[in-house]
Amino acid sequence: MDKSTSGSPIPERVLLGPGPSTVDGRVLRAMSRPLIGHLDPEFLQLMDATQKMLRQVMGTDNRMTFAIPGTGSAGMEASIVNLVEPGDRVVVAVCGVFGARLAEQARRNGAEVVTVEGEWGAPVDPAAVAEAIVAGDTKVVAVVHAETSTGVLQPLDEIIAAAHAQDALVVVDAVTSLGGHPVRLDDWGVDVCYSGTQKCLSCPPGLAPVSFNDRALECVKNRSTPVRSWYLDVGLLDGYWGQDRAYHHTAPISMAYALHEALLMVCEEGLDARHQRHRRHHLGLVAGLEAMGMRMQVENPEHRLWSLNAVRVPEGVDEASVRSELLTRFGIEIGGGLGPLAGQIWRFGFMGASSTENNVLLVLAALEAALHSQGVAAAPGAGVAAAIEALATD
Amino acid sequence: MDKSTSGSPIPERVLLGPGPSTVDGRVLRAMSRPLIGHLDPEFLQLMDATQKMLRQVMGTDNRMTFAIPGTGSAGMEASIVNLVEPGDRVVVAVCGVFGARLAEQARRNGAEVVTVEGEWGAPVDPAAVAEAIVAGDTKVVAVVHAETSTGVLQPLDEIIAAAHAQDALVVVDAVTSLGGHPVRLDDWGVDVCYSGTQKCLSCPPGLAPVSFNDRALECVKNRSTPVRSWYLDVGLLDGYWGQDRAYHHTAPISMAYALHEALLMVCEEGLDARHQRHRRHHLGLVAGLEAMGMRMQVENPEHRLWSLNAVRVPEGVDEASVRSELLTRFGIEIGGGLGPLAGQIWRFGFMGASSTENNVLLVLAALEAALHSQGVAAAPGAGVAAAIEALATD
Repeated sequence: MDKSTSGSPIPERVLLGPGPSTVDGRVLRAMSRPLIGHLDPEFLQLMDATQKMLRQVMGTDNRMTFAIPGTGSAGMEASIVNLVEPGDRVVVAVCGVFGARLAEQARRNGAEVVTVEGEWGAPVDPAAVAEAIVAGDTKVVAVVHAETSTGVLQPLDEIIAAAHAQDALVVVDAVTSLGGHPVRLDDWGVDVCYSGTQKCLSCPPGLAPVSFNDRALECVKNRSTPVRSWYLDVGLLDGYWGQDRAYHHTAPISMAYALHEALLMVCEEGLDARHQRHRRHHLGLVAGLEAMGMRMQVENPEHRLWSLNAVRVPEGVDEASVRSELLTRFGIEIGGGLGPLAGQIWRFGFMGASSTENNVLLVLAALEAALHSQGVAAAPGAGVAAAIEALATD
Repeated sequence: MDKSTSGSPIPERVLLGPGPSTVDGRVLRAMSRPLIGHLDPEFLQLMDATQKMLRQVMGTDNRMTFAIPGTGSAGMEASIVNLVEPGDRVVVAVCGVFGARLAEQARRNGAEVVTVEGEWGAPVDPAAVAEAIVAGDTKVVAVVHAETSTGVLQPLDEIIAAAHAQDALVVVDAVTSLGGHPVRLDDWGVDVCYSGTQKCLSCPPGLAPVSFNDRALECVKNRSTPVRSWYLDVGLLDGYWGQDRAYHHTAPISMAYALHEALLMVCEEGLDARHQRHRRHHLGLVAGLEAMGMRMQVENPEHRLWSLNAVRVPEGVDEASVRSELLTRFGIEIGGGLGPLAGQIWRFGFMGASSTENNVLLVLAALEAALHSQGVAAAPGAGVAAAIEALATD
């Protein structure tokens, strides 16, 4: 057969984009173990252990805490498709790509969608969301905790309080926060939460951790129309993940091995230590970028994600050329902007195993070198120097 | 943290159930390579090479031939959700679990579903399906080529001809046939086909190869309502897999490495040789089982799958105990029956790398040993002897 199908060898990359993040060799080795069946007693034990660790990491006792067999966006769709019925009023906070995606998915499920828009680079105003919630018979409120497209950390407490005062359910997107920022579903009163594996959990992409509390499951049970998706129907998924262990789909065995090992590593590090590590390297990176004369897309430091750092591209710089030089010369992947921010920002993911002191220093030095080679007037070394200072004081 | 989360080591298993099948070490090693980004130029090349090989294996020139980021059932849902709109008439041939699942998915999409039922263990009568097609304004005809729950190979030509005479689109489930039986979409005139990776392609579960021809894509384009699933919307997926390379979801990178390598191995073996290998070991196994006095669930040899062999459990035998002994004493996984066949059949998957001469002899010998230890009167060695004869003459 045509040998051109074989492709080239996979290059080494330093993964500092919006995901996937670096995956530890221990997780890769666990993933590559020989397969066993998805109903094998040994596999069912691994599922149990995975659920137990997911509950710890998500800060919840929710029984129905498990992994959807798809990527983060499948987790989003699972959350929406199970709760929303045609005609339901759904309020969505939108200040980036993923809020907009939530609104689109709710619309496709026949919801009456009310979006509360915010500037791309700041959280959505919680008071405005609260106002939208009380303006009608709201059933679901959906909000992105960590907006990957802008680097914004959204405050949740006021929104959750307003939703619960109206008896509405709260869906939270924690794709880019889980494992990097505190996420405490039960303390916060989140009803449904979804995430992805390829961000701060540092597992390959392909599974979506989700959690439904009893209130949310009750809502699913009381639907007057069937869940439109068979694949993502939480009632059917409960048959497999719950006591019955009934066949539903063939679980992605290798991905399940990987998630199990990645969660073990999260638990071994400890959540507090892991969050602080993300914070420390975020502060070091920001100090370096600002010392290079750049401006963060998110102005208020309190609203900046530790896991995803969005910075304005300096005037007159060809952002795509810089990214391309980082990739081809240094093997470093960073992200560009999406939607209205395309061409205007760079996104530096410091998630999970990618969030290291080495990577802070390396990417700043490489960025200085790339700007220098593209003839941008700057003082090479300033960014690295500032990061060294910041890392030393923290 | 609690050490009890770490679980036990993964045991070695001989995988002769309905999937997953054995995955070659070469595929496991490819899967465990370090990750690169899902928009990395090197990854896009790997996607191109994967599409090219998928087209070869599926016997099609369809541009839109790619891998859905989910298991085989997500491939099924992608096929249905894109073609079906509320009120559409959909005819489904049902003689097992997966035909019934197709009907259920079509119903959840608001279709007017007409099922044509067949006995579990024989194909659905093509003439009855043709009759159902002409009885109304049929838009989609869905049929399972290889029914994993019964071991039936469904003849397709008469059904496809009847559908096309009415201008209806044909969806074919090739989950358990692709890579083990000939599948030639373009020669046969199949409009949409989906499969899974964990059967005769011998790749871990987690991706669903699908193919849409231009006629099917035209139908999607002309919908009057939006596709209900955002995650599985083929128009959006085309944005990522097609020329634009626009971000949609984060591709399951490691699974994509695995599928690429598994397809390389299929292409290196050659499709004809691979199909003949599946046929040969099927005939050897059947000879052995029949020599042991057992009866195949599918009476007509022409309608038996080579990849999935369903045999009636002998009267008076506790089928679960035998399966359990095979698993715990010999490390061999076989499948039980589903739905109305629960407790009545065993299913032996000989798919991809699991379809070997060694496995034919091993599973027959182990089954003889298990029946012997459970006190079933039989002549040990008879099954193995018959298989040796059959393998020698073929």
